[in-house]
Amino acid sequence: ELLAELTAFFQPKLLAGKRVVITAGPTSEKIDPVRVITNRSSGKMGYAVAQAAREAGAQVVLISGATALPAPYGVLRLNVESALDMHAAVMAEAAGADVFISVAAVADWRVVNASDNKLKKNASGQAPELEFAPNPDILAEVARMRAGPWCVGFAAETENLLEYAEAKRRRKGVPLLVGNLAQHAMNADTTELVLFDDAGHHALPRLPKIAAARQLIRAIAERLPRKHAAA
Amino acid sequence: ELLAELTAFFQPKLLAGKRVVITAGPTSEKIDPVRVITNRSSGKMGYAVAQAAREAGAQVVLISGATALPAPYGVLRLNVESALDMHAAVMAEAAGADVFISVAAVADWRVVNASDNKLKKNASGQAPELEFAPNPDILAEVARMRAGPWCVGFAAETENLLEYAEAKRRRKGVPLLVGNLAQHAMNADTTELVLFDDAGHHALPRLPKIAAARQLIRAIAERLPRKHAAA
Repeated sequence: ELLAELTAFFQPKLLAGKRVVITAGPTSEKIDPVRVITNRSSGKMGYAVAQAAREAGAQVVLISGATALPAPYGVLRLNVESALDMHAAVMAEAAGADVFISVAAVADWRVVNASDNKLKKNASGQAPELEFAPNPDILAEVARMRAGPWCVGFAAETENLLEYAEAKRRRKGVPLLVGNLAQHAMNADTTELVLFDDAGHHALPRLPKIAAARQLIRAIAERLPRKHAAA
Repeated sequence: ELLAELTAFFQPKLLAGKRVVITAGPTSEKIDPVRVITNRSSGKMGYAVAQAAREAGAQVVLISGATALPAPYGVLRLNVESALDMHAAVMAEAAGADVFISVAAVADWRVVNASDNKLKKNASGQAPELEFAPNPDILAEVARMRAGPWCVGFAAETENLLEYAEAKRRRKGVPLLVGNLAQHAMNADTTELVLFDDAGHHALPRLPKIAAARQLIRAIAERLPRKHAAA
């Protein structure tokens, strides 16, 4: 515990004075007042990135879906539920940020015919008909902002990681995308990250999430253009 | 804390020697390896009922969906994810039980075309087509068992509680059904329960969930037929 505190204290202040906005955890799309569509994101990776950014001297805003985790020390947490909530919170924070790191598992779709009352099984025994609409692509939208923050995305895939992650990086228009295999990382305390940028990809070893997060923060600080870099 | 321990210790042993099986929390129905359909049940009410049953001297098996709660002291917890998992666990435990209390928020439907790999947004931008099948009705099935346990159901409704809860009691074929308003009880630490039985309904005041659970255990013990009643 003391060792952990000391390690945290002695992290190099690579992001001193920078404003960093990070999303984490799942979004939760309402079907009715009790039922939701969500995902198995625990939020652990995003919270580790928030902690590592704070240790590196950044001012950190963590926009988080529902998780069982405490906010890391010194980090401002904003709680959201749906992808639309998260979109609104990110748009309000991103304009003034130097770095945006999108770690949250944001739902691609929301239910447009969500009910204000609990859906009842109807007499015919038919399942409710759910209609979906695409959610905004938060990361791509922030990446397109004029004078917006330097953007980092995450891709959790279950297969074809190298192909899907690089395709996602290009589609989102971000300089750095972090890939991992969902089946190894979900709910686990360790992860194996692969960093994708214009120069190709670079695989980190399996590490505790906080150690992987510190390596990611270093990789971000190294790549940050001068206008965003720490003085 | 000491007062809480003493209060627990001095609860009357109304279910001494009885085997009680309780379900709690949400079920989680897989769409793909990361996406799920679930509900906002925190598990607090079911865990309170498990604690109250244990305090009353019962041997308690708690079959629980994913929650952030620790197992109550002295309670055997079996963790499950989907409604089918919960069904299998309940069927294995219910035969030897004296009382079955179904508090879990079990999904009515599961996704039959769940994917083994993470679904990709396809080029057409179409939402994935989800096909649903009805889940087994665990409570009704246990209530129909020959020489099965004495059954208690829960109904969380957002409207028309009196009408829906009594209809549910008859449909499930259980002697006691506990209704509450989902919007007041979900994730809260207090609840207002309404007990429905052959004699009509009886509303409890708003109480902390553990206090409401103790009143429920008393109501169960009073109604338990002699073959199930404590010696």
